[in-house]
Amino acid sequence: MVRATLIQIDNYGPWTVTPEPRRETDLQALQARLYADLCASFGAHDAVVFFSRFDNVVAFTEGVGTDAHRSVQRSINNRYPVTVSMAVADGASPRDAVGRVSSLIQDEGSAQDADRVARLVSDIDGGSDVQVGHFDIEEATERYVDEIDAYGCQLLVGRAGLALMESMWERDAVSFFVGGDNYITVAPSLDKDDYAEVIGEVEEETDVELKVGVGESRTPADAGMQAKHCLERSRNGGGRVEFY
Amino acid sequence: MVRATLIQIDNYGPWTVTPEPRRETDLQALQARLYADLCASFGAHDAVVFFSRFDNVVAFTEGVGTDAHRSVQRSINNRYPVTVSMAVADGASPRDAVGRVSSLIQDEGSAQDADRVARLVSDIDGGSDVQVGHFDIEEATERYVDEIDAYGCQLLVGRAGLALMESMWERDAVSFFVGGDNYITVAPSLDKDDYAEVIGEVEEETDVELKVGVGESRTPADAGMQAKHCLERSRNGGGRVEFY
Amino acid sequence: MVRATLIQIDNYGPWTVTPEPRRETDLQALQARLYADLCASFGAHDAVVFFSRFDNVVAFTEGVGTDAHRSVQRSINNRYPVTVSMAVADGASPRDAVGRVSSLIQDEGSAQDADRVARLVSDIDGGSDVQVGHFDIEEATERYVDEIDAYGCQLLVGRAGLALMESMWERDAVSFFVGGDNYITVAPSLDKDDYAEVIGEVEEETDVELKVGVGESRTPADAGMQAKHCLERSRNGGGRVEFY
Amino acid sequence: MVRATLIQIDNYGPWTVTPEPRRETDLQALQARLYADLCASFGAHDAVVFFSRFDNVVAFTEGVGTDAHRSVQRSINNRYPVTVSMAVADGASPRDAVGRVSSLIQDEGSAQDADRVARLVSDIDGGSDVQVGHFDIEEATERYVDEIDAYGCQLLVGRAGLALMESMWERDAVSFFVGGDNYITVAPSLDKDDYAEVIGEVEEETDVELKVGVGESRTPADAGMQAKHCLERSRNGGGRVEFY
Repeated sequence: MVRATLIQIDNYGPWTVTPEPRRETDLQALQARLYADLCASFGAHDAVVFFSRFDNVVAFTEGVGTDAHRSVQRSINNRYPVTVSMAVADGASPRDAVGRVSSLIQDEGSAQDADRVARLVSDIDGGSDVQVGHFDIEEATERYVDEIDAYGCQLLVGRAGLALMESMWERDAVSFFVGGDNYITVAPSLDKDDYAEVIGEVEEETDVELKVGVGESRTPADAGMQAKHCLERSRNGGGRVEFY
Repeated sequence: MVRATLIQIDNYGPWTVTPEPRRETDLQALQARLYADLCASFGAHDAVVFFSRFDNVVAFTEGVGTDAHRSVQRSINNRYPVTVSMAVADGASPRDAVGRVSSLIQDEGSAQDADRVARLVSDIDGGSDVQVGHFDIEEATERYVDEIDAYGCQLLVGRAGLALMESMWERDAVSFFVGGDNYITVAPSLDKDDYAEVIGEVEEETDVELKVGVGESRTPADAGMQAKHCLERSRNGGGRVEFY
Repeated sequence: MVRATLIQIDNYGPWTVTPEPRRETDLQALQARLYADLCASFGAHDAVVFFSRFDNVVAFTEGVGTDAHRSVQRSINNRYPVTVSMAVADGASPRDAVGRVSSLIQDEGSAQDADRVARLVSDIDGGSDVQVGHFDIEEATERYVDEIDAYGCQLLVGRAGLALMESMWERDAVSFFVGGDNYITVAPSLDKDDYAEVIGEVEEETDVELKVGVGESRTPADAGMQAKHCLERSRNGGGRVEFY
Repeated sequence: MVRATLIQIDNYGPWTVTPEPRRETDLQALQARLYADLCASFGAHDAVVFFSRFDNVVAFTEGVGTDAHRSVQRSINNRYPVTVSMAVADGASPRDAVGRVSSLIQDEGSAQDADRVARLVSDIDGGSDVQVGHFDIEEATERYVDEIDAYGCQLLVGRAGLALMESMWERDAVSFFVGGDNYITVAPSLDKDDYAEVIGEVEEETDVELKVGVGESRTPADAGMQAKHCLERSRNGGGRVEFY
């Protein structure tokens, strides 16, 4: 079982244009700060948080109960001009868990329903290990950042990332861009061959070579830290897929 | 001419793993806050800022001089555990301007050169109007957010966005995801037919229908606000391409 | 027993002037954000945090263990250009607890010792109820904010506050300004007469009339919320000292 | 002439207890972030900002026009659950300027009038030099921080500060605590003897020895930076009053 949380800003689209469109840099700053606060709050409980689309943020929250969710939600809702609703649920795989929280929140009403304010729905029980993979691009600085322009670089990272997300999604894993040339995946218990296959598919489709470190532990934060250590091993002469 | 600024975190990759890998939620919060601060500071000068890859942030900064850049840079470098270097330049198109700032910063040394700290390079003169387009997805909430799961939604927005970025890039425009189902493009003076063509290409490739509002003004912030008003007009019965 | 935590920025004074004095607005923004982050992180554990002098922040952290402190400390030290050291200890009264954490941190080295970096010292065991009082000024808006100038108002609040802090200190309680006309005290188990006496002393010395709500509970956050409810009761026709 | 700005949160008191009292750590974090944002935004225009009472923030804004104020106000009001009103005016002295902005904002309605939302009033013309003094306590770390407890230290700094604020106020200057053992004063053109007298009065009343660096320039930020350099000179063998 894997526990996921979906945090959705209530009625955000209409708010951004009421009474007239709000300045984009203000909205960007608001979204980024809200996400940073979610990282800090859930991070204090050893969970991990991905910005996804900023108005819909996805977290993996093994071991974080309903009360702790309520506390994070209350703090956000006290400090921002918008409110958030949250759903938390356990699923058989990361894909399944994200599916469940999506349904739970959709059942509460539309993302743009003015009457759906600050809901919290929860459907959780046990807990087990979670697998996390941390990918980056082979020699990104040398091959791309210092060589081509910043926007071409962004496009290239975007292409490789989309291919990666789709390959992993077929294996019931969900993956997120986390800045730079880094992608993190939350996966069911895949093995080394699965990751090697995915990396092969991405390279075939986009000519970009990835490498990955993989960890597995009771909390997403621990698994993520193991994955980072493995990725370091890969950078220092290890293989392109390193398990903890 | 269009003025662009590239903000690059100095030697960021190595810092994130020294003396050992730092916790991901901390890095995410740091990146998001740094970006929010750049939005607030450059926004005060009517510029617009895109997170791009977070460790490389791209801004359009018509009318913002070298001193104002230095002031923003100093404030960041006083408040974060990392420093940023900046390059600012005018170009014939947004694509050209981003190309120039990328070269300027690459000439200062590698993104992972420990000796390249807090540089500011500037190559600017005049100024002219800048065109900004604000895209979103036709009926995103009704068709997708309330219907499919959060991750499928993210993938779909990602696919449409990548197609959009590549179509606009061929027309010398640079485009950025700004959260939700929104993309903003900074373009040379394109006309209605150009935008209609781009929207057609994206729909053909991904089955996702976009609409766009377009503004043009001396400052990116003004042009962006015009674009938002046009997008509102499109939402309320206007066409799929609306010019100010 | 009451648990207190002292958070001290390491070697902060020298840092603010190295290699030359840093701009004050940057330092102010840094201090305020660091404090806000401590509020968010410790608040997630139902503790309360006071800015005190900003470079020395005092928290009451009933029930928050050493590991949770380490997690908050790590997150700050990953995201700021300065590091913090922390000491946490239980004491017989709030005054005693603050005395203990001050000694613990002084034993680690001077606040301006360049070798004292990111220490965490802990001396904790049990836990019991904590009493919190929330004071404000009788009719502050009507009598002062809308009538006299902003600075005269600040002086008046400062004078009353200093008198309050000294009266409560004699009763082994520690008190903090929290903005506006509000002061919060963390006290040993005082009774109604004690609070009435303190309010009388402040009025005699400064001509400013205070009122107070008082709560007592296992966590500072709960006790503080009880105190706020009592203060509301006082505002709406209750007495000048209201207990939960 | 000296330009001051008063930023007042609209109807803040009632908001903090509606529909019921909000958690204190959330309010603390909100206030601190709002203040940090004002520092960043006004700091970008070379102004200086003091937290004063957090719900009433005082800035000195030489050379910052009405439009720039409107831009800062808009950005805050787009990103917080509360709005702010602002008044900006020139005065003959800092004391006079703060008096004027206080009257301007009081004329708009009470701080707790639900109908007074996001006002901006401005009464400004020319501009001249502004004098800034930066005080701290002689050997604060050695004598107090490393020797006595954190709360006794806060009380001592508070006592000396209140005496300082009152002495300077009699000389038409306004002064603010800025964290640690630091106070900043914005003054009319006082001379060395005036400062020496003030320091004498504070020592007589509280036994605390202060020192001060003083600068004078067209912008508060420049004057403040000069003052910091002078304070450094005082620390390194200079006198207890050092002018730029």
